[in-house]
Formats: sequence, structure tokens, C-alpha cells
Amino acid sequence: MCGLGTVAQGVLNVLRDNVDVITQRAGREILLTQIASRNLKPDVNLGMAEFSTDVLALSKRKDLDVVVELIGGEETALEIVRNALLNRTSVVTGNKAVVALHGNELLGLAREQGCYLGFEAAVAGAIPIIAALTRSLAGNRVDWLAGIINGTSNFILTAMTEEGRSFDDALAEAQRLGYAEADPTVDVAGIDAAHKLTILAALAFGTGFRFADVYTEGISEITAEDINYAGQLGYRIKHLGIARRTEAGVEARVHPTLVPKRQLIANIDGVMNAVLVHGNAAGPTLYCGAGAGGRASASAVIADLVELARGTAYLPLETSNTSLDMLPVEDTQSGYYLRIPSLDQPGVFAKVATLLSERNISIEAAIQREQAINTQSQEAWVPIVILTHTVTERVMNGVIAQVQSLPEVVGKITRLRVDQLSNG
Amino acid sequence: MCGLGTVAQGVLNVLRDNVDVITQRAGREILLTQIASRNLKPDVNLGMAEFSTDVLALSKRKDLDVVVELIGGEETALEIVRNALLNRTSVVTGNKAVVALHGNELLGLAREQGCYLGFEAAVAGAIPIIAALTRSLAGNRVDWLAGIINGTSNFILTAMTEEGRSFDDALAEAQRLGYAEADPTVDVAGIDAAHKLTILAALAFGTGFRFADVYTEGISEITAEDINYAGQLGYRIKHLGIARRTEAGVEARVHPTLVPKRQLIANIDGVMNAVLVHGNAAGPTLYCGAGAGGRASASAVIADLVELARGTAYLPLETSNTSLDMLPVEDTQSGYYLRIPSLDQPGVFAKVATLLSERNISIEAAIQREQAINTQSQEAWVPIVILTHTVTERVMNGVIAQVQSLPEVVGKITRLRVDQLSNG
Repeated sequence: MCGLGTVAQGVLNVLRDNVDVITQRAGREILLTQIASRNLKPDVNLGMAEFSTDVLALSKRKDLDVVVELIGGEETALEIVRNALLNRTSVVTGNKAVVALHGNELLGLAREQGCYLGFEAAVAGAIPIIAALTRSLAGNRVDWLAGIINGTSNFILTAMTEEGRSFDDALAEAQRLGYAEADPTVDVAGIDAAHKLTILAALAFGTGFRFADVYTEGISEITAEDINYAGQLGYRIKHLGIARRTEAGVEARVHPTLVPKRQLIANIDGVMNAVLVHGNAAGPTLYCGAGAGGRASASAVIADLVELARGTAYLPLETSNTSLDMLPVEDTQSGYYLRIPSLDQPGVFAKVATLLSERNISIEAAIQREQAINTQSQEAWVPIVILTHTVTERVMNGVIAQVQSLPEVVGKITRLRVDQLSNG
Repeated sequence: MCGLGTVAQGVLNVLRDNVDVITQRAGREILLTQIASRNLKPDVNLGMAEFSTDVLALSKRKDLDVVVELIGGEETALEIVRNALLNRTSVVTGNKAVVALHGNELLGLAREQGCYLGFEAAVAGAIPIIAALTRSLAGNRVDWLAGIINGTSNFILTAMTEEGRSFDDALAEAQRLGYAEADPTVDVAGIDAAHKLTILAALAFGTGFRFADVYTEGISEITAEDINYAGQLGYRIKHLGIARRTEAGVEARVHPTLVPKRQLIANIDGVMNAVLVHGNAAGPTLYCGAGAGGRASASAVIADLVELARGTAYLPLETSNTSLDMLPVEDTQSGYYLRIPSLDQPGVFAKVATLLSERNISIEAAIQREQAINTQSQEAWVPIVILTHTVTERVMNGVIAQVQSLPEVVGKITRLRVDQLSNG
């Protein structure tokens, strides 16, 4: 095992705590014989494992059955996985960045070498979503999937929703509790979720691992005001990864989304993760659980190890085997939430509605709040809030530009996507 | 394939609709070559399969890779599964009764013969709960699980909760919509759920398949009044199968249960199924989806077929390999909901509270409604509703007998179990 951080310590602990059931289910004992970590040995009981600090040397050893890569980061982790596979040694990793960015190469290499690359722990921690897509839903053509796959963002949005906190305040709370890094960018800008969505889309649709084609938007622009309006309209704002097969191609996008409150996934709160998959046989199935944490991620790592020990591991076949292409976000379709700060004058709403109707965009719901006074300019203004039916993003961009240039619109329009998460 | 009912037709249709993705994921084409049904051939496109009406003859053929058993019922289905396994032919079945009642024999036979018995479709339709327990959570010691595993009962309770219907009325509606059989006993008396819980408990705890030891209670005694009181106390009434490992042994019971509304599983409505599993590494994971229906169950059947085609099928090891015994229901622990019809006299509540406190049973919440007049006797009476903390069933039985014999108690006490579905 390369790495000795939270997840790696979880693997050590769970293998020890559950040795009896794991040995029985795997049909043999699973032993960690070598552990390497670039840092000095922490005060951890390593059992019978030998410790070293040269992770690359460990990854090159030829006497191992499996290399478990849990160091995180990208460059060295990639080298570890490559080294092991080049030795025909199977690999289990929890590294979403390495799989999302190098999955095509690495799965191809594993296939060539006749060994396995397990990455259940790379997406949504304890939730067996990789097994669901590659095994349990193997009889299905997946129509779409949507997931809360970043616990940090979900914690922040939950705190903003339940306690009316601002984004900055909720982020600080997440940092205090250890749910967000000191530099939270990878989580709150949606990059971590985009890594995970890349993996889910590759497995669900056979498009290959195409991180660069995933549209990515984080949660840092979300305000308590928008959460409040969404609530009045019957929606919650969740940071979702959405991948959908359409006739024109595959959509893959990560962004804050208004989801109807009655949907179970709208009620997944705090650091929990959940993935909703719509298969054309199974219909909708939902998988929820802890998306991070040492023991939760260890559960996924050990699931892969048990499959290898039993001889029942499965390496997804060639994943870029489809004529389906990835759609640019401008060609995707969605409902939209618009919040338009406007002067409180007669006819502004009518002007906006006219611009929408000229593009055949129908309005599903609207809120026009009572007049407020801008304390600086002393001008009366109102936020106009509109939910639209489904429309292509390119068309919506055009309308937003037109509305933004109306003289009565006094501030930047906020635009969020809406998804009913139902079929058709 | 033996059988040509709803699920079997689903398998035919899904194998045809999704032949490209299934062939790719299985690594070979999955062909139905022979179909037998005891009924005359329905008007169904059988593709290239030959049709016959002798299901037993089909199960004895030696030229098959796999026998798919989907005829339902018990005796003939059991014979089909036995015949195939005796021929060293692997079997995929959706038959919960056969697996629950004969799982020890049949899994033992499959092991002896070196073939497989897949039964993902036997529990919770499209939800991959068998794979979760035997594969994805293999690294976990399961602490407990709880599931909504009978769609008919869940539909009826949902209709009673949301529309205030009576049990009889909701049952009639379920029958009209095809969600309940003309004779609904197997569903509403909890037998179907007990079959499924038997399977889940065997896989989670290694107790073997012990249907006779599962305590079973259905939903036919549930009243709109109790649903209403539960709602006032912050709970929903769900028909759950619960299996839990305790120091004294394994609890396995099927009964209506008050569940806190904030729990996701309390919000699984209509015919949907869900299973919540608490593992000692993964923590809680929840799996939701369609529990029945031709295509949903076909998704599970085909998942098993794909594993067989790939050579990655897994037969759970000896399942009765534990020293853990099954606890009689009298030795299980639970919170309780009591509805006590009482004369409206001073001191009745105090008497009940005293009897509870003498057994060290603490009261979590209580409702004492305003006086009502019994229209027949013209007597004033009140229902006293009490939620207790956790207590052993045997102790609770004793207290209920005492309370029932109080002269002020004017009708039969209603007793339901309460589960917080949280740890500790």
C-alpha cells in the first residue's frame, strides 16, 4: 500500500477489525505486507507490514499481488499506478484525479497487461456506484445519472439552506469541522465533482474518460437569497454532477442545480453523497452514503481487494467504444432559474416575458417581490425571479444578454439550471 | 428460461432492446435458446427461442449454460432449480420463497456441484442489494439493516398516510392498480417481506436461511388514527424488515414500524423499495428503487447472467457458519408506540406511567387528546398515546398486560414498534 493518510489508515484498521469476515468472504486472508509513505512513519500500528518511505520503489516490486495506491495528488500517484500495471500487478486506487485524467491510458494498459485496475473508492466513498454501473446495471442502457458527489459543497449548501448562512460563513464552518481544505478550490469550484462525473460518464455511456469535456461550475456564487427563492418555488439548490445521453450526444456537467424538494436526492444533506441512475430496465435507482472518510472509503478499497482475492474482479471493457460524442454546454438543455434585479417600474416583467416568448421559452413559475429601496441610490427596485421550462443553453444565453441590456435591469442577472430529475 | 410471466417477458424484452450494451459488457451474446411455460404460449415474440410447456423437462436438459427460473410458486420451482444444479447447470432465479425456504440446501448443492445460484432478482427488484451485501460491503461487519421490501404494503401505507384512507380502501385501490393480488395475504401479512428478510439476514450475518425464525407481522391492523398520531409525534409508519446483530444473537423481524420522518427511508413512498444497511466500515448506505415490475426485475436477472457470462459470478460461501443464533422476538429490543383507549378520569395517565416506570421504561413522548364521547356508551374517553424508549419485548408484553387490565382501559391497546434507525 502506497500512502498512509486517512483512507490508508482506514484500510489498515478495517482489515484488522474485520479480518474474520473479510477472510471468509475473500476465501483467503488479505495481508498488507508492505506500506510506503513519503512522510515519516506516523504513530500507527502497521501490523505485520514493513514500512518504507520510497513509494515508487514499492510500486516497482515484482513480488506483490496487488498495489493499493492511496497517496492522493496526481503525478506520483500516476507513476505508481503505471509502474504496477507495467509489472502486471493489479492496482486498487481511490484517486479520482488520476482515473479521470488518465483512465483511458491506465485501463488500456491494465487490459494489455492482463491485470486489473479497481477504483470503487474514487467516486462517492462507501457508495458502490462503480459496481452498480459496471455490474448490477449491466443489463441497462443508462439514460442519465445525477449525483451529489462532493461532500464539501453539499455540506456548505446544506448549512446555507438550513441556517441561512452566507457562502463564506458556511465555508469557514466546513473548514473548522475538517470538511473543507484550507484551500477549498478543488471542492467548491466543482473540480473534484468533475473528476468523479468523468468516471461515471465513462462507465455509463462508453464515451471514454473525457474530463476536459465536462462543463464545471462551483457553488461560490450561490447566495442565501437564491436558496430562499428556490425554496419558495418548491426547490432546493444542490451541487450536482449530471450526465445524460441525448440523441445529439452525451451531456456531462457539474453545477448548482434547482431540484424539486419532493425528490429524495434534494433531501441528501450535509456531507452525505448520493447518485441517482436512470436505466432503461431498472428505472430510477438511488444510492446514498458517506462520500468520504477513512473507514467509508476503506470499505470501497476492500471491496475491490476482495473481488481480486476471489478472482471475480472485472475490468470494464474498452470504454471509448461509442459513436456518441460529448456535447458542449451550449448545446445542452435545461430549465433555468433567473433572478433579474430591476427598477420597480410598470411593464418590466412584461418586457422580460416578451423576450422569453419570442424565443419560445415558456415560464413555469415567477416571483415578483414587493418593492425594496436600494439604500445607496434610494431607487426603488424589485428582483424578478423566473423559472423557465427546458431550453437549449445557447438560446438562453442570447435571451439573458438581451434582458441584461434592458435599461430597467439594474444589476447582473443570476442564472442557475433547474432539473426535474424525472424522465421526458 | 422457465416461465413466461411478467418478469420473464421483461427479461426477453430487455435482452432484445439492449443486446448491444449487454453483449459488450458480458463479453459475449446472451441468448435465450429455450423457453418453457406451463401455460399455452402467450402472444409474445420469443426471438430465436424454442417454446415448450414442460418446464421440468427443460430444467433437466444437459445442453444449457444457465437455467433461468421465473415461474414463481414453490414446489415446481424448487424442482427446477434442483434439477439444474444436479446437472451442474448454474441457475438464476427471482424466486424469494424458494431461496428463503430452501437456500441452505440449494446453495450447498451449488457449491458441491461447482456451479452458481444467482438470486439478485429475489429481493427488492432492481435494487442491487444482494450484490451490495455479498460484494460491495464485503469489507464490513454488518451491524443492522432495515428495508421496505414489499411494494404492496408500502403502497397501501402511503395511500393511508397521504390520503387518509382506511386499510380496506387503500387495499382495494392497490388491487385496482394491479399492485396487490386478488388474495393479498402473502403481501399484507408480511410473508413476502419475511422471505426477503430471510435472504438478507443470511447474507449479512451468516446465520443461514432461517425463515421460520423471522418474526412476521403485517399491516392489516394499522389504522388511519395511528398513522395520524405517529405523524403528530414526528414519525411515519412503514412496513420494515429489520435484521440486527446483537450480543445475544441476531434479530430478524418484519412488522409495521414508526420511523422518524427525517430518515430518508421514511420518505420512500408508493411501490418503491429501499434497504438501509449499516456496516462497521461504510457506515449507513441506502439503496432505493423499483421493487417489482417486469423490466426492473429483469435488470437484476440480467445482472446475474452477465456475471455468469463474464466468469465473475460469486456464490456466497457457507452461510451458516456463525455461532450467532436467532433471537426469539420476546428477546428483541425496540421502542414502542402504545395507544390506550381509556376512560376520561383523573389519574389514568399517572397509573400507566407508574406501571411503565416500575419496569424502568422511560417515556419519550406522549399525547393525551381532548375528551371524546363514545357514541354508543355515551361515556367520555380519551386515547392515551405513548412512545417509549428501548425496552425488551418480553418486558413490554408484561406491562401491556397490566395496563390492559386497568379498569379505566376500555378497549384493546394498540402496540407498534418504533425504530430510530440510528446507531446506539
